[in-house]
Amino acid sequence: MRRNISESTVRRLSFYLRILEKVEAVGIDTLSSEKLAQRTGTTAAQVRKDLSLFGSFGKRGLGYAIPQLASELREILGLDRTWRVALVGGGRIGSALFEYSGFRKRGFEIVAVLDADSSKVGQRWGKVVLSDIADLEKVLTAESVDIVILTIPAESVPDVLDRVVAVGVRGILNYAPVQLRVPGDVTVKDVNMVLELEALSFALSQTKGE
Amino acid sequence: MRRNISESTVRRLSFYLRILEKVEAVGIDTLSSEKLAQRTGTTAAQVRKDLSLFGSFGKRGLGYAIPQLASELREILGLDRTWRVALVGGGRIGSALFEYSGFRKRGFEIVAVLDADSSKVGQRWGKVVLSDIADLEKVLTAESVDIVILTIPAESVPDVLDRVVAVGVRGILNYAPVQLRVPGDVTVKDVNMVLELEALSFALSQTKGE
Repeated sequence: MRRNISESTVRRLSFYLRILEKVEAVGIDTLSSEKLAQRTGTTAAQVRKDLSLFGSFGKRGLGYAIPQLASELREILGLDRTWRVALVGGGRIGSALFEYSGFRKRGFEIVAVLDADSSKVGQRWGKVVLSDIADLEKVLTAESVDIVILTIPAESVPDVLDRVVAVGVRGILNYAPVQLRVPGDVTVKDVNMVLELEALSFALSQTKGE
Repeated sequence: MRRNISESTVRRLSFYLRILEKVEAVGIDTLSSEKLAQRTGTTAAQVRKDLSLFGSFGKRGLGYAIPQLASELREILGLDRTWRVALVGGGRIGSALFEYSGFRKRGFEIVAVLDADSSKVGQRWGKVVLSDIADLEKVLTAESVDIVILTIPAESVPDVLDRVVAVGVRGILNYAPVQLRVPGDVTVKDVNMVLELEALSFALSQTKGE
């Protein structure tokens, strides 16, 4: 039933939801599209256009009813449920992510951690006992994992990726500096701050030299 | 002199460089485009196309000369120098970034940290003493900052961003969940793992419900 929504629209819906939740937390009930736009770096027309894709939330002169709109945005973004997440790679980045509480707040629960290092397998991290990456299929299936976060070295990715996809996982958050090739029904998002810094470095070098 | 290079090409150059450095570290001198492609998740034809933009590095049948190609890629990416970075926002994400050594390895040196919280101003983090965000212009100028990393709340961004741009900084790495509007000569890159997870959640919800 849903229309084809662009990545940048989805991004803005996340922005809107954050602001609505902050405003709601201080007891405000309604917010104008102008104020919502201002606080998310966009225009009031864009806010109205984005939100009209999903229904009619605002009242002229009154603004958006915050609790209702926030609730609707959570539902649209799939944040009204818990997502079961496996962390593949228990190294430095993996352990930092595991400790980050912002995931759980949004309903992303890390239910499994896998590593290839036999000295790590069996370690307990909070409620999770680290599994051997050799048991990937078994663990992802047993834990009904929806989303996999890859924090393994680039050269390990192709093999692991094939196994993750084969077992039916359709959402992947990738920290490895490698391009993932996946079937059309699998969604990949990349996060890598050093790569983003290198892209900045490239851009700055280009203009500076001319 | 440089051509207009796409973001995805720049991203792949970063991938290639990582693999070349790993291979070089184990004493291998040459690498074929096929092997480089395989380890970065692309095709040999794409590798050859990307690298031909910058010159002729490979020898037929011998592959790429690794030290020369790695050195050239570092120069292309602007990684043959040090970039002076200011961290604006000394909260949880800011302090985690500050401790992350991967920046410095690539030549990104955090030379200043700024925060609005007067209880943090004056704290010493390694070699850096935290400055008051009120002194932003003074600090960015005195420290000859090239790149600013924004790890402040979304609602503080518009004001701070204007000041960062006005002082002449042209590279921004943004962790705030807000869209940055900057002049054409300023480059912004965004990093936000929770937003990427929300985009995954949205994609998975969409297909699941139909």
